[in-house]
Amino acid sequence: MAQRKPAQSGEEAIIARYFRPLARHPAAFGLIDDCAALALPAGSDLVLKTDAIVGDVHFFSDDPPDKVAQKALRVNLSDLAAKGAKPAGFLLALALPKGIGEDWLAAFARGLGKDAAAFRCPLLGGDTDRTPGPVTIAITAFGTVPKGTMVRRAGARPGDRVVVTGTIGDAALGLASRLDPGAAARWALAPGEAAHLADRYLLPQPRNALAEALRRSASASIDVSDGLVGDLGKLCAASGVSADVEAARVPLSRAAQRALAAEPAEIERVLTGGDDYEIVCTVRPAKLAALRAAAARARVPVAEIGVITKGRAPVRFLDQTGEPVLFKTPSFSHF
Amino acid sequence: MAQRKPAQSGEEAIIARYFRPLARHPAAFGLIDDCAALALPAGSDLVLKTDAIVGDVHFFSDDPPDKVAQKALRVNLSDLAAKGAKPAGFLLALALPKGIGEDWLAAFARGLGKDAAAFRCPLLGGDTDRTPGPVTIAITAFGTVPKGTMVRRAGARPGDRVVVTGTIGDAALGLASRLDPGAAARWALAPGEAAHLADRYLLPQPRNALAEALRRSASASIDVSDGLVGDLGKLCAASGVSADVEAARVPLSRAAQRALAAEPAEIERVLTGGDDYEIVCTVRPAKLAALRAAAARARVPVAEIGVITKGRAPVRFLDQTGEPVLFKTPSFSHF
Repeated sequence: MAQRKPAQSGEEAIIARYFRPLARHPAAFGLIDDCAALALPAGSDLVLKTDAIVGDVHFFSDDPPDKVAQKALRVNLSDLAAKGAKPAGFLLALALPKGIGEDWLAAFARGLGKDAAAFRCPLLGGDTDRTPGPVTIAITAFGTVPKGTMVRRAGARPGDRVVVTGTIGDAALGLASRLDPGAAARWALAPGEAAHLADRYLLPQPRNALAEALRRSASASIDVSDGLVGDLGKLCAASGVSADVEAARVPLSRAAQRALAAEPAEIERVLTGGDDYEIVCTVRPAKLAALRAAAARARVPVAEIGVITKGRAPVRFLDQTGEPVLFKTPSFSHF
Repeated sequence: MAQRKPAQSGEEAIIARYFRPLARHPAAFGLIDDCAALALPAGSDLVLKTDAIVGDVHFFSDDPPDKVAQKALRVNLSDLAAKGAKPAGFLLALALPKGIGEDWLAAFARGLGKDAAAFRCPLLGGDTDRTPGPVTIAITAFGTVPKGTMVRRAGARPGDRVVVTGTIGDAALGLASRLDPGAAARWALAPGEAAHLADRYLLPQPRNALAEALRRSASASIDVSDGLVGDLGKLCAASGVSADVEAARVPLSRAAQRALAAEPAEIERVLTGGDDYEIVCTVRPAKLAALRAAAARARVPVAEIGVITKGRAPVRFLDQTGEPVLFKTPSFSHF
């Protein structure tokens, strides 16, 4: 370990140049204090999430730094969305290896500021450190819900419909085709389709526009970060129920459809691969129309894919003959 | 970058075994949901801090894992203390290299749980990831203060007294003697004194017992993490003032006194080295007696070391002849 060498604070210079301009919310005190102080609306619960992304684990070290920053924030925003929470702000703990220069930091801060504005989730504070390892970005995001209304994993009941946003599997296919340059040709993807899959891995599109509708209409909800099969399984386990999903009703992009047509075995990657940052939720039948209408207003595509069932058996994904699809490993884990 | 390989979730097993037992606060939902939901007392501000520690940067990779966990939490608790905030909970983002085994995790969780209980700052949520780099622990801690009462860096006025808790310089000397095994002999330290310095580096003793007194009596406050000279300088810069400190009044442990007697040049390390996790604050003269009485009740030693002065000149540390002590580099930075 290197001894601490006193020096004029480069950390302060980095904060002043790149991050202070993002911290205009009064709670942030322009990043010149040790802590932020956030006033919360009366009658609210604070919804809290921390999620870190690590270079060469969750993103490629040569990914564009603005996109890396956006991904770091969005993986947290996606959880707030699934819980029905309105973003209130975030803190950033950034560990940087020595090779990171001013250009990287400038682009990183630009991406972060863009999303902080777009999602109305201001930077409230942070910490910048050196690391002998890869860039590591730990963001803690805060949101609010009216007291007691956070949409939980627990809450699904037999008969509830299973609903998913957007399309599933694109990011996992995008990562696979990035690691295997022959994949796009094997899957007969048009250039636009290959780019679509790559973009879906690079930059999640969290469904914060749907948060309020989920709070009003969903009985349980989770964001799909570790794969639809695994994350729906976690929702069901927390709710003490199971589910039957019709695999053919899981919404797929044109690119994913083409990949599956060429290599049907890719269905495992699509349904278990993760990084979707869509939302899977459950809805009482009487509330389904309200959720659909709110989703249409929010311009978020939603699809009903199955039904919650009694018991604690693993979630079943049924093929078109009604037989369960078997997965080698239903949920992603780095461990 | 390794492709994401689906697997039965080892992360969930780690959470269930080591971290769920620490997450008994109702806001944590036993860590089975994606987010925590924390109800806050009406009329409060939420005080927010994130600080990360990185293996081989902020601690030695072979430090006892329970102490590493305690340090990771305590560096955040120290900021809450300086701001006058009462701890409410924390989130943990933990990145682990492959070599970390069950014994390490068990000891880490034990240390974390011990301090979460001791400081009444429960674990509310977290994230566990793999990293090809060193162990990286990003903690975000939350506290509360009555609305508008966070003790800021800004707020010091000319004539305010400068007060510091505990003793200064021990941790920096402890780190130096750990890196230079001849130092303890050179400084003629008794074994207990060498151990005292080593402990002060290994495990900060944040001054949360003084938080309420600071809120009632301090005009400005900061915790001493990057060295007394630099951190008092930050407080003064934020307040638009300067300060004169009598270097001889800075409280020193017996071990630090002995090191300075042997090597007077170590005064620079003592005053600028950092890792003290004491508090330096400013107090209007009329409130000094109240702060002293509250500190005595809280059993936190406090010492008056100087006075806030007009202007924006750098803080001066004066020797016994009234001449300014000159520092090569007044504040620590990893950058």
